[in-house]
Amino acid sequence: MQDKLNELKKRLGEISDIQNAVSLLGWDQQTYMPPGGAGARAQQIATLSHLAHEKFIDDAMGRLLEELRVYASKLSYDSDDASLVRVAKRDYDKARRIPATLVFEIAHAGAQAFDAWRQARAASEFPQFAPFLQRNLDLKIQYAGCLGYTDRIYDPLLDEFEPDMKTAQIEAIFAEVKKEIVPLVHAIASRQDTVDNSFLCRPFDEQKQWDIGMEVAKHLGYDFNRGRQDRSPHPFTSSFSINDVRITTRFMADYFPAGFFATIHETGHALYDQGVSQSLERTLLAGGASLGIHESQSRMWENLVGRGLPFWKFFIPRARTLFPEQLKNVDAVKMYRAVNRVQPSLIRVEADEITYNLHIILRFELENMLLERRLDVKDLPEAWNAKMREYLGITPPDDAEGVLQDVHWSHGAFGYFPTYSLGNLFASQLFEQCKKEVPGLEASIEKGEFYPLLDWLRIRLHVHGRKFTLNELSNKITGKPLQTQPFITYLKNKYSEIYRL
Amino acid sequence: MQDKLNELKKRLGEISDIQNAVSLLGWDQQTYMPPGGAGARAQQIATLSHLAHEKFIDDAMGRLLEELRVYASKLSYDSDDASLVRVAKRDYDKARRIPATLVFEIAHAGAQAFDAWRQARAASEFPQFAPFLQRNLDLKIQYAGCLGYTDRIYDPLLDEFEPDMKTAQIEAIFAEVKKEIVPLVHAIASRQDTVDNSFLCRPFDEQKQWDIGMEVAKHLGYDFNRGRQDRSPHPFTSSFSINDVRITTRFMADYFPAGFFATIHETGHALYDQGVSQSLERTLLAGGASLGIHESQSRMWENLVGRGLPFWKFFIPRARTLFPEQLKNVDAVKMYRAVNRVQPSLIRVEADEITYNLHIILRFELENMLLERRLDVKDLPEAWNAKMREYLGITPPDDAEGVLQDVHWSHGAFGYFPTYSLGNLFASQLFEQCKKEVPGLEASIEKGEFYPLLDWLRIRLHVHGRKFTLNELSNKITGKPLQTQPFITYLKNKYSEIYRL
Repeated sequence: MQDKLNELKKRLGEISDIQNAVSLLGWDQQTYMPPGGAGARAQQIATLSHLAHEKFIDDAMGRLLEELRVYASKLSYDSDDASLVRVAKRDYDKARRIPATLVFEIAHAGAQAFDAWRQARAASEFPQFAPFLQRNLDLKIQYAGCLGYTDRIYDPLLDEFEPDMKTAQIEAIFAEVKKEIVPLVHAIASRQDTVDNSFLCRPFDEQKQWDIGMEVAKHLGYDFNRGRQDRSPHPFTSSFSINDVRITTRFMADYFPAGFFATIHETGHALYDQGVSQSLERTLLAGGASLGIHESQSRMWENLVGRGLPFWKFFIPRARTLFPEQLKNVDAVKMYRAVNRVQPSLIRVEADEITYNLHIILRFELENMLLERRLDVKDLPEAWNAKMREYLGITPPDDAEGVLQDVHWSHGAFGYFPTYSLGNLFASQLFEQCKKEVPGLEASIEKGEFYPLLDWLRIRLHVHGRKFTLNELSNKITGKPLQTQPFITYLKNKYSEIYRL
Repeated sequence: MQDKLNELKKRLGEISDIQNAVSLLGWDQQTYMPPGGAGARAQQIATLSHLAHEKFIDDAMGRLLEELRVYASKLSYDSDDASLVRVAKRDYDKARRIPATLVFEIAHAGAQAFDAWRQARAASEFPQFAPFLQRNLDLKIQYAGCLGYTDRIYDPLLDEFEPDMKTAQIEAIFAEVKKEIVPLVHAIASRQDTVDNSFLCRPFDEQKQWDIGMEVAKHLGYDFNRGRQDRSPHPFTSSFSINDVRITTRFMADYFPAGFFATIHETGHALYDQGVSQSLERTLLAGGASLGIHESQSRMWENLVGRGLPFWKFFIPRARTLFPEQLKNVDAVKMYRAVNRVQPSLIRVEADEITYNLHIILRFELENMLLERRLDVKDLPEAWNAKMREYLGITPPDDAEGVLQDVHWSHGAFGYFPTYSLGNLFASQLFEQCKKEVPGLEASIEKGEFYPLLDWLRIRLHVHGRKFTLNELSNKITGKPLQTQPFITYLKNKYSEIYRL
C-alpha cells in the first residue's frame, strides 16, 4: 500500500508543480508582464491548467484513490496521509462530475460576459449585461446539477469555495448578523461627525508608503526570505511553494489607509500560506483550507490587529517619524478612531468592517433568489436597490454604482461572496479564543510583539493546510462550530466606544 | 493532410506553451524569486521540462512527422509549413536517439560536477574537479555515440547548439582567424599605452547607468511594449512569446562599460527574438536559429554598432549630459578609443572583441583533444597554460584564473564555446553585406537612426526564426557560406587605426 501512496504523491507532486507554474504565470501577468505578452500568456495559462486538470481526472488516479480510501480510513483522521487521500478523493469526485464540454462552455460564456459587463458598467446600463448574466446563471444551474445536491442549489456552488459549508448554516448566521448590525449601522449613521479622518486624506509620499508597509509586514512576521512584495493594480497574494509566498500592493496618493491596510491584509494571507507544515509541500494540502479561512487570516491582521488600539499604541511613533507633517498631533487614540471610521457607502470594496457584511448579505440573498428562480434577472437592479435602502439606508444613483459594481457574476462566480463574511466571523472567534489561551495578548501587541499571536495561529491553524474544513477547524480550535457572537460582541464594543453610542 | 498539419501545430503549440512557462520559471529564478523558493523551483522546472520532452518524443508525434514529411517536401523549402515539419523532424529524430536514462545520468552528473567545480575553483585545485570532468566527458562521449557521427565525435555535440555545423568547417575557419589575430594581438600588446580608458574606471551613479541603458535600448529599437529590462547577477535574454522578450542587466559601480555594453548586447538578442514573424508564434520555429546566429546579433549591436565611432558621434553629447564630471573633455573619438581598449587577459568574459576569439579557439581545441582522447584530463591545466602563453602571451597564476574559470564544462556543455566566435564572424559578414545594400548606413547611425540597420536585419534574418541553419542563412543573405575575411578585415582596419600599428 506504501507503493500506491508513493504513486499518489508522485502524481499529485507533478500536478502541484504544474499548478504552481500556472500561479507564477498569473503573478507575472499582474506584476511585470509587458502589455504585448497578454495573448500568449492567456494561452499558456489555459494549456497548463488543462494539463493539470487532465492529469488529475485520469482514471488511474481514480483507481489509486479508491484503493487507498480503505487504507486511509484506518489511519488517524488528522494524519497527513489520511487527510491527503480524503481531500484528494473529495476534489477528484467533484472534478469528475463536470463534463469537459460544460467547463469549456462556462469559460467561454464567462469571457463573453466579462466583456459585456465592462461595457455595461461603463455605460451604466444593466440591460446590456442581463442576457449574459442569464446565460451564466443557466450554466451554473447545470453545473450545480452535475455536482448534485439534496437541499439547496446554492450548496454545491458554495462548496467550491468553502468545502462542506451549507447554505442553511450561512442563512442562520447571516440572519443573526443582520439583526444586530443593521441597527448598529443606522445608529452610527446618525453620528457621522463623531470621527474625523480628514488628516488621512492628504498627500502621502509613495515611497514612504512603500517603506512603512514593508516595515509593518516584517514586524508582523512575514518571512521575506520566503516571500516578497511587488506592485499590481489590485493587491493579491500568490504562492508557488510554502517557501515562496508573495504579496502585492498599490497606493492611493491622497489616502493613507488604502495602501497601508492592503499590505497588512495581504500579509495576513501570506502568513497563513507560509505557516503550512513543510511536510505538505508539493501535495494538494499546501495552501489555505478555504476562501473563508484565508479571509479570516487577512482580516484578523488587517482589522483585529491593524485597526486595533494596541497596534497604534506601538506603531504611532514610527508612523509619525515617517509622516511628521501629516500626523502632527495625531496620537494612538486619534489614529485608532480615524482608521475605524464607518460610513454606509455604495461600493463594497471601499466599505468599512461593519457595513462590509451587509454588502455581502445582500449579494448572498440575491444569488439564492436568482438561482432558485425566485427573482428574474430583469428585476435584479430593483431588488438590489431595495436591499441597499433597507440595509444601508442609501440608494445607488445608477447601475454602475449598484448592481454592476462587482466583476464576480460576469465570471459566473456564484457562491463566492459569503466567504468574505465567514472570514470576518471566524477571525473574531479565533481571536477571542487566542486571548483566552494566550494571556497578555493585547499587551504584547502594544509592545510590538506579534509572535504570541502568530505562533498560536501557526500551531492551531496554519500548519494544517487544507486538511480540514472551516467547521472542523472551528470545532478543533474553539470547541464550537462557526459562531456569530464573538464578531457581534467585538463590533458592538468597539464601535459603541468609538461612536459613543 | 491539412488535418495532420493542424494536429502537429496543436501539439507543438502545447509544447511551446510548456517550454515558455519553463522559461518564465527560469527568468523569475534569476530576477525576483526569494531565496527560499529555490528548492521548489528546481523541482517545477524539472517536472515541466520532462513533460514537454515526453510530449515531444511521443510515438504519435513521430508518426505525424513521418506522414507529413513527404507532403512537406512538395512545398517550397522556405515556407512556414515545410520548415516547421523539417525542423520538428530534425529535433524529434535527435531527441529520440537519447535514452531517458542517459539524459538523467548527464543531469545528475552535471549537478554533482557543478558543486565540485565551485569548490575546486574556490580552492584553485583542478585535481578536485578532474574526476567529475572525466565523468562528464565519458557521458558526453556516450551521448555523441547515441546521436551518431561519421567524421568527428565533436560534430553531434556542436550540432546541439549550431545545427548542421561541422567541426571541420570550424577548424578551417579558426585556423585562418588564429593566423591573423595572434600577430595582431602581439603587436597591440607592445603598444599598451596608446589607449587611455582610465576615465571610464571611476564611480558612475547606478541609477544613471540604468537610465542611459534604457535610453540606448529604446534608441536601438527595442520595443518595450513587448519587453522589459530587469536586474540579475548575470545579464541574459529570455522570451516567453515573440511579444514578450525580456532582458536583464547588472552594473559595476566603478566601470561604466560593464553595464552599458551588457545592456546593448542583450538588446541585440532581444531585437532578434522580437523580430521573428508572428506567423511562427507557438511553433518551435519562434526564437533564434542557433546560438551562433543569436550571438551574431548581440555582438553586432554591442561591438559593430555600440563600439563604433558613428554611434559615439551621435551619443557622446547625451552621455556627457548624464555624466558631466566623468566625461568632461571626452569627445566621440576619445570615447571610441577607450571602449575599444585591447588587453590580453586571463578571463574570457572580460576579454575585448579581438582576444575573446583566442579564448574560444583555445577551448575548442582542448575540447576536441579531450573528446578524441588525445589529451588526458590530468594534463589539461598544463595544456591550457601552454596555449594561453602561445596565443595571448600570458600565463595564469593558478587554476582558478585558468582552466577552472568557466562553468560550462561542469555541466558537460562541450560544443558550446565555438558559437561565440561564429557569432563574431557572422556579425561582420552581415554588417558588410548590409553596408553594400543600405547606402549611408553609418551616416544614419551617426544621426541616431538605427532603423535602416534593424529593418534590414528584420527582413533578411529575424523574420525567419529557426527555419534555417547558419550556412543556409549566410548563403541566402550574403551569397556565401560563413566567411572569415569580413571579420579579419574589420579588426585589422579598426585596431590598426586605434593603435597606430
